[in-house]
Amino acid sequence: MDMAVRAAVAGASGYAGGEVLRLLLAHPGVEIGALTGNSNAGQRLGALQPHLLPLADRVLAETTPEALAGHDVVFLALPHGQSAAVAEQLGPEVLVIDMGADFRLEDPADWERFYGSPHAGTWPYGLPELPGARARLTGSKRIAVPGCYPTAVSLALYPAYAAGLAEPEAVIVAASGTSGAGKAPKPHLLGSEVMGSMSPYGVGGGHRHTPEMIQNLSGVAGDTVKVSFTPTLAPMPRGILATCSASAVEGVTADAVRAAYEKAYADEPFVHLLPEGQWPATASVHGSNAVQVQVAYDATVGRIIAISAIDNLTKGTAGGAVQSMNIALGLDETTGLSTIGVAP
Amino acid sequence: MDMAVRAAVAGASGYAGGEVLRLLLAHPGVEIGALTGNSNAGQRLGALQPHLLPLADRVLAETTPEALAGHDVVFLALPHGQSAAVAEQLGPEVLVIDMGADFRLEDPADWERFYGSPHAGTWPYGLPELPGARARLTGSKRIAVPGCYPTAVSLALYPAYAAGLAEPEAVIVAASGTSGAGKAPKPHLLGSEVMGSMSPYGVGGGHRHTPEMIQNLSGVAGDTVKVSFTPTLAPMPRGILATCSASAVEGVTADAVRAAYEKAYADEPFVHLLPEGQWPATASVHGSNAVQVQVAYDATVGRIIAISAIDNLTKGTAGGAVQSMNIALGLDETTGLSTIGVAP
Amino acid sequence: MDMAVRAAVAGASGYAGGEVLRLLLAHPGVEIGALTGNSNAGQRLGALQPHLLPLADRVLAETTPEALAGHDVVFLALPHGQSAAVAEQLGPEVLVIDMGADFRLEDPADWERFYGSPHAGTWPYGLPELPGARARLTGSKRIAVPGCYPTAVSLALYPAYAAGLAEPEAVIVAASGTSGAGKAPKPHLLGSEVMGSMSPYGVGGGHRHTPEMIQNLSGVAGDTVKVSFTPTLAPMPRGILATCSASAVEGVTADAVRAAYEKAYADEPFVHLLPEGQWPATASVHGSNAVQVQVAYDATVGRIIAISAIDNLTKGTAGGAVQSMNIALGLDETTGLSTIGVAP
Amino acid sequence: MDMAVRAAVAGASGYAGGEVLRLLLAHPGVEIGALTGNSNAGQRLGALQPHLLPLADRVLAETTPEALAGHDVVFLALPHGQSAAVAEQLGPEVLVIDMGADFRLEDPADWERFYGSPHAGTWPYGLPELPGARARLTGSKRIAVPGCYPTAVSLALYPAYAAGLAEPEAVIVAASGTSGAGKAPKPHLLGSEVMGSMSPYGVGGGHRHTPEMIQNLSGVAGDTVKVSFTPTLAPMPRGILATCSASAVEGVTADAVRAAYEKAYADEPFVHLLPEGQWPATASVHGSNAVQVQVAYDATVGRIIAISAIDNLTKGTAGGAVQSMNIALGLDETTGLSTIGVAP
Repeated sequence: MDMAVRAAVAGASGYAGGEVLRLLLAHPGVEIGALTGNSNAGQRLGALQPHLLPLADRVLAETTPEALAGHDVVFLALPHGQSAAVAEQLGPEVLVIDMGADFRLEDPADWERFYGSPHAGTWPYGLPELPGARARLTGSKRIAVPGCYPTAVSLALYPAYAAGLAEPEAVIVAASGTSGAGKAPKPHLLGSEVMGSMSPYGVGGGHRHTPEMIQNLSGVAGDTVKVSFTPTLAPMPRGILATCSASAVEGVTADAVRAAYEKAYADEPFVHLLPEGQWPATASVHGSNAVQVQVAYDATVGRIIAISAIDNLTKGTAGGAVQSMNIALGLDETTGLSTIGVAP
Repeated sequence: MDMAVRAAVAGASGYAGGEVLRLLLAHPGVEIGALTGNSNAGQRLGALQPHLLPLADRVLAETTPEALAGHDVVFLALPHGQSAAVAEQLGPEVLVIDMGADFRLEDPADWERFYGSPHAGTWPYGLPELPGARARLTGSKRIAVPGCYPTAVSLALYPAYAAGLAEPEAVIVAASGTSGAGKAPKPHLLGSEVMGSMSPYGVGGGHRHTPEMIQNLSGVAGDTVKVSFTPTLAPMPRGILATCSASAVEGVTADAVRAAYEKAYADEPFVHLLPEGQWPATASVHGSNAVQVQVAYDATVGRIIAISAIDNLTKGTAGGAVQSMNIALGLDETTGLSTIGVAP
Repeated sequence: MDMAVRAAVAGASGYAGGEVLRLLLAHPGVEIGALTGNSNAGQRLGALQPHLLPLADRVLAETTPEALAGHDVVFLALPHGQSAAVAEQLGPEVLVIDMGADFRLEDPADWERFYGSPHAGTWPYGLPELPGARARLTGSKRIAVPGCYPTAVSLALYPAYAAGLAEPEAVIVAASGTSGAGKAPKPHLLGSEVMGSMSPYGVGGGHRHTPEMIQNLSGVAGDTVKVSFTPTLAPMPRGILATCSASAVEGVTADAVRAAYEKAYADEPFVHLLPEGQWPATASVHGSNAVQVQVAYDATVGRIIAISAIDNLTKGTAGGAVQSMNIALGLDETTGLSTIGVAP
Repeated sequence: MDMAVRAAVAGASGYAGGEVLRLLLAHPGVEIGALTGNSNAGQRLGALQPHLLPLADRVLAETTPEALAGHDVVFLALPHGQSAAVAEQLGPEVLVIDMGADFRLEDPADWERFYGSPHAGTWPYGLPELPGARARLTGSKRIAVPGCYPTAVSLALYPAYAAGLAEPEAVIVAASGTSGAGKAPKPHLLGSEVMGSMSPYGVGGGHRHTPEMIQNLSGVAGDTVKVSFTPTLAPMPRGILATCSASAVEGVTADAVRAAYEKAYADEPFVHLLPEGQWPATASVHGSNAVQVQVAYDATVGRIIAISAIDNLTKGTAGGAVQSMNIALGLDETTGLSTIGVAP
């Protein structure tokens, strides 16, 4: 690559911002430009993200159009609802990658119900593994990075729906590491509270990621898929384990299920369908852009059970963002991204 | 209580054995007698269970009829399949409480399928909260303590089935702390492997606790309840969070669901139905015999979602054993048991 | 006990307040009266301390003299520096037990250097195991509960100083669970930050607990003991492991060291000197008032190494408070307190 | 680099073996050749190291001279005491890098005292940051990789000794993640035991890494440095935090201490002296080859306190091995190694 792409990160002090910087530091085609924050503007990055040693002496700027000007790519790692205002100040020639929720949903009513503000629009969706997604991302100047749960759930279940094997009613229970809840300090996220504890939240359809799952699964199913989604907070900093199931349609066999998943993921660089009998573990994808998937057909109850493990910050956020950036810019999709976890 | 009940524990070096000793030490009506082990016979308990300071100088005997003779109650904390041989050497006047799986299942075929040996029989089932259970336990001299997962799942779901609110097809995803897998060292249970990791196992109907759940739920439903059960290993030493759901029958309302649970648990000393909007956390029941339950009706998908948190070693094993012992002996059911968790 | 002691807790929503309530619930001679908070006044305790089920429906009052009036004992679990103002509103006939730092230090200069406000005074010090402490606590109406680190460190080292075996220069490195830092949410205490991480803080004499250690050790040594203290934050909710060492005086032998510790702790109900070769672990004292201590003499370097494990919230705070209350009220010192840890 | 170096790993199923493979996969100048194991020979690497997806289909060979033949570099990740027998079967033209303890110690008596077998010899020591080490490593065909604790401790303390600022008596307390204890399952390493627990081991001079620390520090001090070393096991999978201190020599100032460390590490690519007031955290170096160091002078007690954080498997084992390999082969020392941690 002759000329590096120059990238800015708005919201560089949070977890998504820190992770995208971690990945961009390893990306041979990217030069890291402006780093911005709001309450943290003026601070050294070394004090805020002490793991990013090569950037320790960088100082955060305010998130202003001036600070973000002059970059080829701008990553937005902002609180939900704040991306639109920043994005509209960036020219159409700049690749803007939003790691927030603002541009993921197609139906404005879904947005308004869960976020309570006017819908800002819909951008090409950065989950390249979904059918048709790569074509929409190629050359795009705007990308909406999927939520971490929808990434894990869509990749666990979509092959079953794409192959017409599952009834349009999915039951999902997912466990997430605490970084998914962000870096703003709240009592229930204290280490004292989360270590040794599993707890659900947003039960009964209340989680903001549910409409995004419905959108993705319905898109491949060609029919509205109902989703019962229960997220749980797990005592680990990173990782999502999504346990998904759906009734199989009449006549499904274990072989047919296996075949559908093998076909879906045969050529995917980041999705790894495990050998039969081996199940995903979040530790195996810690810090990597890989997705580990396994699927079983439980004939006794007639359900397909598909389980995926991802790193919520990597494939679930910043890795997915970089993967989509690569596609948008015409780079090899895997540039700067690893399928190797940091384990144990 | 004038005369203390004299209790022996066979298998005192493991997690179930250690937990029952922890509870018996706090029980005003019990005197702790013989402690036995096999590979650990001859060792000080202080080296094996360093948290049980009052028993530190006790030495483990071999698990023999002689060692276990002369006790009013014998707790068996043995590997699955070993209880029957020990139990038959104990007289009919001795209260024998099996914390293993041997006498839980009613259908010998279930046992043989999951454990591969001849079925030893069925004993009164030590989950007092199930309809009719207390009557069967009162005065009984043999008690089969439920499995930890079936305890959590049955208490989360049975009110919905007892009230006829749920279709007979339940989907359950449960997260368990590692002590549920016992103290025998295996590579996948190393701290290095489990910290920071969530992983499923026994997926697709393969877990030995599934028939026990079916037995309990079908018993109250009056119909066979199909159970899709996925257990996951969570990075915490104790606790089970069971996320359970089932389609609601036609016409169910949120109020009807709430009412069914309020009715079921109004007078239960250990099951605490949380106020609406508050969800269980395993940390809240750490070391206690309490069960925290919450339920919601998700009208969008027509499912009842019931979630319970227990301590797998306390209410899920040793606490359930002591609670059942109290009933069998005619003591107050709560003697020596606490509903107060050790948190944070 | 014919009449229960009526106890109030000011600061019932924090970790120290929650722990003292956990212990008082198990205390046969105490009736729990008023519970107060400030920012949390008006909330149900069940929402703030969900592990204290028997008190779930209690509502926090404001911390006012009226709310605290009419109790025999008042526990103050307030931020450092706030106890004096509350205490002076309580009559001299009320037993006031301060779990904050306000009344621990004898030298006003120490207080002012570390806390920056005028010194409120010095109360009898609630570490009964120190020589002479019980006499000062008996009948006292004011008790200053020690800090968690000074408790662990003083009990690890004082026998060596009391027996004149150690030079007056101690080097201490202690690891604490995160609950020691309290419940106020701060970014570095987030689960995401602390899980998987060990980090020091207050290095080089900067920790507020250092003068308290010096005071305790110097008191028994009869000479000023210099203390190099480095606290570290460990990825666990509870527990302190204090690794302490000092040069041995000329002629010390391993036997002499052992003998000094055996003598010091032969009759102590809560301090357990482990058998030679066994070392403390914080998990063994989780939730208990026990202290596990071990000591070695490393002849190669001429140092005595003494290590203690406590639960920072129990023996290190609320358990020490209840133990001291028992002494002050003339109750058996161990009433309501356990030496049994919740492990694993 | 025109031609890749071909590397074999003996002991590929353990933690050190897995980590060196993780790093070699990212090394642009290395081609991964034979992978061997003993009890695991014949198994897929995907079953043993599920995080190393690109090598999932590799099958482990037996550790034989034939399997290891034909490589430019052979990494030995074997149990202590087994490296010599394998190494002597490899020709003098092969670069052999031993990640075990066999060739670290210079004094055969030290080896025999701690390992109980005849001493195999001494190889150039792979801690490039020590004075003179790079010269000895350049072109060498045999490298002894340091132990994880000696790496952390030597880098924390050597500048103080090299500058003549510290008395030759160091007191060290270090906390290690559990992976330092290896992958062989033992009861005290179970997740159930280690989560929530801190515990010391090998207290009083008993740890095998002590003579290696003495060797390193004495080498730079020009005098025998006595070391009091207490290792502790921390509830985290990776990381070492080493808290080290020593009395300062007469006349030392905080500025002199700071200057010594700034000088020592000004040009080191992997050692990062933190800005004053910021302290290391193991999470910040998770998965990276970086060392974070901070130092303070506590004038009150006259001690220099130096603290380092490393990843025990990366800089403490496999990263140090790759760094030394780079030097030995004449590659850029940082090739394939990162200073970016995976956090949070």
